[in-house]
Amino acid sequence: MGGNTFGNAFCVTTFGESHGGAIGVVIDGARPGIELCPEDVQVQLDRRKPGVSSVTSARREEDRVNILSGVFNGKTTGTPVMMIIYNKDADPGAYDALRRLFRPGHADYGYMKKYGVRDWRGGGRASGRETAARVAAGAVARKCLEARGISLAAYTLAAAGIWCEEINLELVETNALRACDGVAAEKMAEKVEELKSQGDSAGGIVECRISGVPAGLGEPVFDKLDARLAAAIFSIGAIKGMEFGSGFKSAHMSGSEHNDQMDENGFLTNNAGGITGGLSTGEDIVFRVAVKPTPSISRRQQTVDEEGCNATLEIQGRHDVCICPRVVPVVDAMACLVLEDLIKCHAALMA
Amino acid sequence: MGGNTFGNAFCVTTFGESHGGAIGVVIDGARPGIELCPEDVQVQLDRRKPGVSSVTSARREEDRVNILSGVFNGKTTGTPVMMIIYNKDADPGAYDALRRLFRPGHADYGYMKKYGVRDWRGGGRASGRETAARVAAGAVARKCLEARGISLAAYTLAAAGIWCEEINLELVETNALRACDGVAAEKMAEKVEELKSQGDSAGGIVECRISGVPAGLGEPVFDKLDARLAAAIFSIGAIKGMEFGSGFKSAHMSGSEHNDQMDENGFLTNNAGGITGGLSTGEDIVFRVAVKPTPSISRRQQTVDEEGCNATLEIQGRHDVCICPRVVPVVDAMACLVLEDLIKCHAALMA
Amino acid sequence: MGGNTFGNAFCVTTFGESHGGAIGVVIDGARPGIELCPEDVQVQLDRRKPGVSSVTSARREEDRVNILSGVFNGKTTGTPVMMIIYNKDADPGAYDALRRLFRPGHADYGYMKKYGVRDWRGGGRASGRETAARVAAGAVARKCLEARGISLAAYTLAAAGIWCEEINLELVETNALRACDGVAAEKMAEKVEELKSQGDSAGGIVECRISGVPAGLGEPVFDKLDARLAAAIFSIGAIKGMEFGSGFKSAHMSGSEHNDQMDENGFLTNNAGGITGGLSTGEDIVFRVAVKPTPSISRRQQTVDEEGCNATLEIQGRHDVCICPRVVPVVDAMACLVLEDLIKCHAALMA
Amino acid sequence: MGGNTFGNAFCVTTFGESHGGAIGVVIDGARPGIELCPEDVQVQLDRRKPGVSSVTSARREEDRVNILSGVFNGKTTGTPVMMIIYNKDADPGAYDALRRLFRPGHADYGYMKKYGVRDWRGGGRASGRETAARVAAGAVARKCLEARGISLAAYTLAAAGIWCEEINLELVETNALRACDGVAAEKMAEKVEELKSQGDSAGGIVECRISGVPAGLGEPVFDKLDARLAAAIFSIGAIKGMEFGSGFKSAHMSGSEHNDQMDENGFLTNNAGGITGGLSTGEDIVFRVAVKPTPSISRRQQTVDEEGCNATLEIQGRHDVCICPRVVPVVDAMACLVLEDLIKCHAALMA
Repeated sequence: MGGNTFGNAFCVTTFGESHGGAIGVVIDGARPGIELCPEDVQVQLDRRKPGVSSVTSARREEDRVNILSGVFNGKTTGTPVMMIIYNKDADPGAYDALRRLFRPGHADYGYMKKYGVRDWRGGGRASGRETAARVAAGAVARKCLEARGISLAAYTLAAAGIWCEEINLELVETNALRACDGVAAEKMAEKVEELKSQGDSAGGIVECRISGVPAGLGEPVFDKLDARLAAAIFSIGAIKGMEFGSGFKSAHMSGSEHNDQMDENGFLTNNAGGITGGLSTGEDIVFRVAVKPTPSISRRQQTVDEEGCNATLEIQGRHDVCICPRVVPVVDAMACLVLEDLIKCHAALMA
Repeated sequence: MGGNTFGNAFCVTTFGESHGGAIGVVIDGARPGIELCPEDVQVQLDRRKPGVSSVTSARREEDRVNILSGVFNGKTTGTPVMMIIYNKDADPGAYDALRRLFRPGHADYGYMKKYGVRDWRGGGRASGRETAARVAAGAVARKCLEARGISLAAYTLAAAGIWCEEINLELVETNALRACDGVAAEKMAEKVEELKSQGDSAGGIVECRISGVPAGLGEPVFDKLDARLAAAIFSIGAIKGMEFGSGFKSAHMSGSEHNDQMDENGFLTNNAGGITGGLSTGEDIVFRVAVKPTPSISRRQQTVDEEGCNATLEIQGRHDVCICPRVVPVVDAMACLVLEDLIKCHAALMA
Repeated sequence: MGGNTFGNAFCVTTFGESHGGAIGVVIDGARPGIELCPEDVQVQLDRRKPGVSSVTSARREEDRVNILSGVFNGKTTGTPVMMIIYNKDADPGAYDALRRLFRPGHADYGYMKKYGVRDWRGGGRASGRETAARVAAGAVARKCLEARGISLAAYTLAAAGIWCEEINLELVETNALRACDGVAAEKMAEKVEELKSQGDSAGGIVECRISGVPAGLGEPVFDKLDARLAAAIFSIGAIKGMEFGSGFKSAHMSGSEHNDQMDENGFLTNNAGGITGGLSTGEDIVFRVAVKPTPSISRRQQTVDEEGCNATLEIQGRHDVCICPRVVPVVDAMACLVLEDLIKCHAALMA
Repeated sequence: MGGNTFGNAFCVTTFGESHGGAIGVVIDGARPGIELCPEDVQVQLDRRKPGVSSVTSARREEDRVNILSGVFNGKTTGTPVMMIIYNKDADPGAYDALRRLFRPGHADYGYMKKYGVRDWRGGGRASGRETAARVAAGAVARKCLEARGISLAAYTLAAAGIWCEEINLELVETNALRACDGVAAEKMAEKVEELKSQGDSAGGIVECRISGVPAGLGEPVFDKLDARLAAAIFSIGAIKGMEFGSGFKSAHMSGSEHNDQMDENGFLTNNAGGITGGLSTGEDIVFRVAVKPTPSISRRQQTVDEEGCNATLEIQGRHDVCICPRVVPVVDAMACLVLEDLIKCHAALMA
């Protein structure tokens, strides 16, 4: 109920603050017998970690994962899999100047109002760093899904106002923005660099496409596949919008345009984005999310301190100019957690 | 885990099929001492019920609510509040022609794939009729919220391609579309009528605005206020997109444009839509949802039957041309359920 | 969290008060395709209903079950199964004299302290009548278990100080006490009749034996099979003790006496009562529960009223002299709910 | 659902194996602002740790707790509190001889049947070592309860067939058995030593007494205070029976003997053990549990190997002769978890 656990059957609990001792995750519900080594997880963590390009934060974290339980002789045992990442490059001193100020666009103000105390070191629990734990858990779910024939890929579709014009998944890991179009990727990088030099930041659109999910996944009424995906995705800090298939365009279409008709070869269109009535249709699941511009900017901003008095701040430190490329593996991970969880829920129902 | 329960502390379980004996809801967690009579609930159900205009389904259901437990001498006792609505105008015979066909845009195909059996009478459990149970529960949550100084209103912002140009909440209950602009409402009605005459249907945009929520509501990490609202809203059948505050536009703004700066009088802007880092900011919570066009249209459509053979269908019966005005009270209700639940979760944490 | 829902995968929510409109249950998680008719449930309800012998309450309730959702063409559809029993012989007037007094041995005092209000009509939600909803749900679980080759039987092992000397399951439904020994049953009936004439009541021991559960059922750590059974059984109002296998005797045995050794034909003994380390061993699961004497007695008792002033009361009305025979089907039902739930949880883990 | 999480509002997830990297716990739901340092937890862990007397296992584990999240500047922040104990004296080699044999009285056989794989090093997840994580979490709950005026104490009431004749809580921490009677403690120690020399082991009875719980704690119907305590206590490996107040004796009492009558000064008796109808009465909560004799004995025992073939085993290694003194702090801890959780659930309901 405290909100740090996700999933009913593939159940993930995360812990840790940005500049505390460690962040990590406990998975309760992973099937016994999955071959699992740290490298399986590390490859996903490396996609999320900072310090890899000029677009992202310069914080140097190796983000090495340690698996401390639930694996024996290289295989999961069915008991909780605990994975931990010790914080190495924590630099709480960098936040001294901010300890009494609420940074615009961050959770600082809300945390103080909610809890009455807060860990002001880099956002504490509200830091994007928390998502490393999700990526670790998602890597385990992904292994399970791959064995089921399910694959997925998220990528940056737009950033800093530049849109991709083609979707080439092979390009995604070859550019700093994780864009799916090489030409657009270059333009995005230029635009992001320009914003950086102005002490500003950029947002973007991340799209995710999932293939191989059989028809009928999801639980009515409240655990519809899209409802669960939405809960998962909006639990990522920077997300301000989400749409499936034709999404917001659907609102202005007529029924005869929007309905995905069928013939004996399957669906003729996929306006639904692979989900109708909360259940998968067997078509690719497609959704897009709006990522807001990084709130940590070095431009001078107006705010208040803990007493409510006017103040200005200029955020120094190591921050992402555009968070999209690091949101991509987190979207991947959250989608994996939802799918593996719902597959297990369905198995329970049918048992 | 079966997906028919929503909420952790104000916990709602719904049951019932469109053309079965009844639909209803059990609320577990309503505070003792709330004054509650059937009329408190009926007023909300009447907003959702069919048969009130040419825009909506002609099914004649009084949707009279009966409160069968949890209320004694006009007040809640703290034990489960069970509310039931007996189906009166069920007409399963109308669905005979459809019993072996999958209606495009409906959950029919997914249900068959998931369960191997399905109640084909009007969509069974997947029918929009299920939302009456949510509206009943939401009415109880709304009473609690009002006592806390929280108010909310959803309304149709766009329908059939027509957008409202002003937001006048007093107009919402005065027009068939529940639009917030009188001029637009007339144009929408004309356009909807036109689509109806063509055997087609329309979608739209519903916006919801919530006032009076104190700063700090929501639970990190996975039960962020926006994540919980998104789960709630996407669990409504026809929703294909959702955005908070600046929403999808945020993706193309810079940080200096998007950040909501503060001074001693509060926030200077509300691009966040009242939620930052998953917690309420104290500003109005604002979100918009994309409602797809009603899938039940009388135009001839291509589909398959349960054996996968090609078929065509023309849906007769009583259907909504544009579901927006009936989605409005459901959005209201789901938002109420989320807020009341999170307020109680917060109380538990701080106890 | 409100405590009216039981189970994770075969999830049961009950509602209703003793003298309100109805009592009932929603099952979320029953497999689609189970053949289910009201008679399947009625046969179990008839075992629990009052008015069948001089041992039990004279309240005349037919306890007819209505299945209002989740069943279509005689089979479950996988959606919530709602079953309701309308209260017919409610006689709240009989409780007028008690409306401001706390009955000793009842939950009256605790309810008032907890909620600040209470439904004083026959105990309201705290009435044993609530267990009818559990028996209805248990009947559905039992159908599922029987299809899995699992059978179970509870019976009165002792009552009013008289112990059974043999366990003959065929006798259980032939005597008013549901005892497993014909001679003992007669003595019990005499003793109970004597207590009744003295305005007093009796308790007893109910034993339950479950066969056919394969080894390995249960979830470590907190959802051990015995932990879940204990939670289920102690949630029945009158239970004051529970033990598995050798139970309290185990405390005084040595390890060499208590350990159940094995050879290639299986276990040599069953001191564990079929559960070791929280998992089933494949041997019969055996547990015993201590049922307290019915607190409603007609003898004069000392108590206080809602203002805390001294008072005396003599309870009139229709009450069970010994509740054991009616506890038997409830123990059966709760055990069925636990087993079916854990089987589904295991299926989810292994999926 | 995997069974490694306990509680709804004060929510505890444990992980770790006896001879893996570490064991630990995540608490989700601890109130912000609790002063918490490792020593607060260590004092309870030291009560549970092995190697402190000849009665208990000679394994040398310092059991030093590390708090890696959720505490900032000496106070809880409201975010997950993660506590970890690294395994230091793991000696899996000692289990080489047992890796293919099922130890009688242990979970080995059940784990293999359930999961198909198992961590055979000292019982893996099924080891009593897992309870250290519970004790750590319980220490945090205890701090919260003490601030509420609630205190509790468990102690050994009987061991190896010897019963305490007085209850003197001041003696409990002064003898190896944690008995509440000095004379009995000596006799118990002698008897246990004798069994040890015979390669055998002993069980016992642990009693727990809780003071200061206000009337009305507990949630009907399924989360009755006694049901939740029973679930908690039976989730400890060695427990075979539990009873509240008069317990099993109640079964043979009449209603007029058993009912706890009241006058204006309160209850006249406490046969209920402080719980009636699943709610606390305000009187001391009293329960007793039957602890089975330690299954690890050095006497030769008959068993089978993983192929089901006959085998004999003589367990060497470092084992407790009587586990009662180490069960005492675990019973304490589990009771604390239940109480703190239910207090928070009640706060949510009443909010």
